Amino acid sequence: MYTCDVTLRIRYGETDQMGYVYYGRYAEFFEIGRTELIRKLGFTYKDFEARGILLPVVSMIVKYVRPAAYDDLITIRTTLKKLPTARIVFYYQIFDEAGTLINEAECHLVFTDSATRKPARPPEALMQALQPFFLSDS
Amino acid sequence: MYTCDVTLRIRYGETDQMGYVYYGRYAEFFEIGRTELIRKLGFTYKDFEARGILLPVVSMIVKYVRPAAYDDLITIRTTLKKLPTARIVFYYQIFDEAGTLINEAECHLVFTDSATRKPARPPEALMQALQPFFLSDS
Amino acid sequence: MYTCDVTLRIRYGETDQMGYVYYGRYAEFFEIGRTELIRKLGFTYKDFEARGILLPVVSMIVKYVRPAAYDDLITIRTTLKKLPTARIVFYYQIFDEAGTLINEAECHLVFTDSATRKPARPPEALMQALQPFFLSDS
Amino acid sequence: MYTCDVTLRIRYGETDQMGYVYYGRYAEFFEIGRTELIRKLGFTYKDFEARGILLPVVSMIVKYVRPAAYDDLITIRTTLKKLPTARIVFYYQIFDEAGTLINEAECHLVFTDSATRKPARPPEALMQALQPFFLSDS
Repeated sequence: MYTCDVTLRIRYGETDQMGYVYYGRYAEFFEIGRTELIRKLGFTYKDFEARGILLPVVSMIVKYVRPAAYDDLITIRTTLKKLPTARIVFYYQIFDEAGTLINEAECHLVFTDSATRKPARPPEALMQALQPFFLSDS
Repeated sequence: MYTCDVTLRIRYGETDQMGYVYYGRYAEFFEIGRTELIRKLGFTYKDFEARGILLPVVSMIVKYVRPAAYDDLITIRTTLKKLPTARIVFYYQIFDEAGTLINEAECHLVFTDSATRKPARPPEALMQALQPFFLSDS
Repeated sequence: MYTCDVTLRIRYGETDQMGYVYYGRYAEFFEIGRTELIRKLGFTYKDFEARGILLPVVSMIVKYVRPAAYDDLITIRTTLKKLPTARIVFYYQIFDEAGTLINEAECHLVFTDSATRKPARPPEALMQALQPFFLSDS
Repeated sequence: MYTCDVTLRIRYGETDQMGYVYYGRYAEFFEIGRTELIRKLGFTYKDFEARGILLPVVSMIVKYVRPAAYDDLITIRTTLKKLPTARIVFYYQIFDEAGTLINEAECHLVFTDSATRKPARPPEALMQALQPFFLSDS
């Protein structure tokens, strides 16, 4: 298992007239979560793309447990529970400042060759960096 | 069963640097789908809100089957398969101009009293308008 | 002078907690306005890009005259007042359903070679299509 | 004069298929800039709203000097050059990580009574907090 926490503040432009964060904006929070998890491992998603690997989302499940409001500080916890194959699954929990769970989600992405747009193996260096956190899988 | 189709054109601002629609923007397509389904029944979601009924999304499942690109004309098919209770489930299929399925999703929403923020019964008039399409349910 | 009107309905996700359209979302309305003006002339911006011409925005002025609300039908009027050079200026007026002006703006864009990222001449066919509408300029 | 710097990282969802930040997304950067300037003064815009003061944008000028890219760390410098009246003007400069100017803008906002939706005086406590930075104005 490998986990990364990142905290951010809700923007006014992320709210809708219900007075809470628009449900479609959570996708950006999930994106930030996995971007920072990859950075914590010593890589950047930007660099993956520069080397011809795209990582499109193929499916997503989201549970909106409690609303988030403008100016709230939320913590996005992103977790890898298994070593990736061509598919990588990120699990998400979002907490408000009091530590209450407000959102749970999972996003499935597929390592994709940017030239052929076909599934690809994850970068070898990424796999090696993840290996120590998933010893029981090996 | 009750179904509504609506067609729209992909905006440049909806794409990301992968060259396709950003995965978070589909939530707006689903929102448009249910807005128009409700309008087709003779109501508006705007009017529900004016009468104190909110309809927040409590969960969502999305399958990104194929990408959509800038300037594409997509058709959003929104379907109710069951009469709503306090919970209403919208099913979505999105098709490209050739009729190929590019996205499948479902959104669960809960009729909510805007004063108490507690679950509420769906508007009676909405239930009556839906009834004829769900005879086998009654 | 060349003008194009396009009508669209405000999305819920375009509102913020003030109950009106978020000020940053108007940029998408302007983008739709110029996309449709170009289409009305017989071209597509998509095709310009495919042929190596980008059209980034270099400056924008916006006056928010009145707010727009969820589910409003707005009309975006896009106008070219002069023949483009490497620079093209789109003027915008947005009207509500009653015909009241709610927004005025102008966007300056520069035809750009996608390979060199340097300013470029506008497509010759576009200039020829525009010429009849700007006789006094010639 | 009163200035506030805030640094943030560009999200993937903020890019478009040109490979840079979509021009409409800068409005959120400006919003973050003024939110943090107000916080630095000891207040929150959220609290202003809670006490019945809205702050809608009435006009905006933006110059897109250079593009910003995914994963870039940008610094938003927000400046008040004059004491506000009912109108408050925020000036913006955005810099990339090397300190190069990439964007300049100004946003005009009007303190507005949320009940009457009419212009209002700025909160007295805000004026007092700003006064020391604008001695030559007094």
